[in-house]
Amino acid sequence: MMIEYTPIGVIHSAFKKLEGMPIQPAGAAGIKGRVEVFEDFREGLVDLDGFSHIVLLYHFHQGRGFNLKVVPFLDSRQRGLFATRAPRRPNPIGLSVVRLDRIEGGVLHIENIDILDGTPLLDIKPYVHEFDTQTEIRTGWLEKGRKTVSDRKSDGRFK
Amino acid sequence: MMIEYTPIGVIHSAFKKLEGMPIQPAGAAGIKGRVEVFEDFREGLVDLDGFSHIVLLYHFHQGRGFNLKVVPFLDSRQRGLFATRAPRRPNPIGLSVVRLDRIEGGVLHIENIDILDGTPLLDIKPYVHEFDTQTEIRTGWLEKGRKTVSDRKSDGRFK
Repeated sequence: MMIEYTPIGVIHSAFKKLEGMPIQPAGAAGIKGRVEVFEDFREGLVDLDGFSHIVLLYHFHQGRGFNLKVVPFLDSRQRGLFATRAPRRPNPIGLSVVRLDRIEGGVLHIENIDILDGTPLLDIKPYVHEFDTQTEIRTGWLEKGRKTVSDRKSDGRFK
Repeated sequence: MMIEYTPIGVIHSAFKKLEGMPIQPAGAAGIKGRVEVFEDFREGLVDLDGFSHIVLLYHFHQGRGFNLKVVPFLDSRQRGLFATRAPRRPNPIGLSVVRLDRIEGGVLHIENIDILDGTPLLDIKPYVHEFDTQTEIRTGWLEKGRKTVSDRKSDGRFK
């Protein structure tokens, strides 16, 4: 079974290469970027400006193939791919929750962006606390590393 | 530009049709289901059992086409599609944060499932508070409706 998607826009940021990027939005506080939504889809942006945060789903367009075991940025040991957020995946879909500053025409001005310049946008969803937030969670191997995420940058390991 | 994905598994649940389903995981507390990960990808599940919650990305396989304005389940007015979580979208990717009970072989036993039986699975990511949770949020038109989500069920409007 093959599933075909077409980008609805493109994400613009200051990050031109995979090395030295923030690892997650938590490591990109205040870093600004833009999401350009293509003309054909702009009517669907109505009402989105009421939301302070949005979920971006996008296609990791750099890096080919994947390994089912990887050494993630926040660890020194191999981990199962699906227990990590590494970008090279069987279906390389990226997920970031970012702050939405304002919308001008078809352009979303966003903050806390950890996304490579030129990344194809697949979907935008409103971020809703009741839908997306969990409490009393366990985070396995990431239990230590997750707290250091804002100080860490990517390297070239997933090119 | 065309992006091609292939399912890595299939989601099994008690929900056989689109009507009468929970609207979000928040409306599906305690409802159990299974995620069957295909043989070729199982090695990537190592370490995932340390996480209490996971993000499932999947393909909304029922319902064809989309409208850029929709009347969402939690409102009586038309809203821009990207300001809603409606399933019929240009790229119909579903996102649910669910509780992971245990993993047996290639099967993930999960709770709080709001997903239709037979849904193709695209990706699994660990849910991490620092990456995925936002505070001080505004939720626009959903400000009232979001608190009633656990009492509401879907109808056939997005078939």
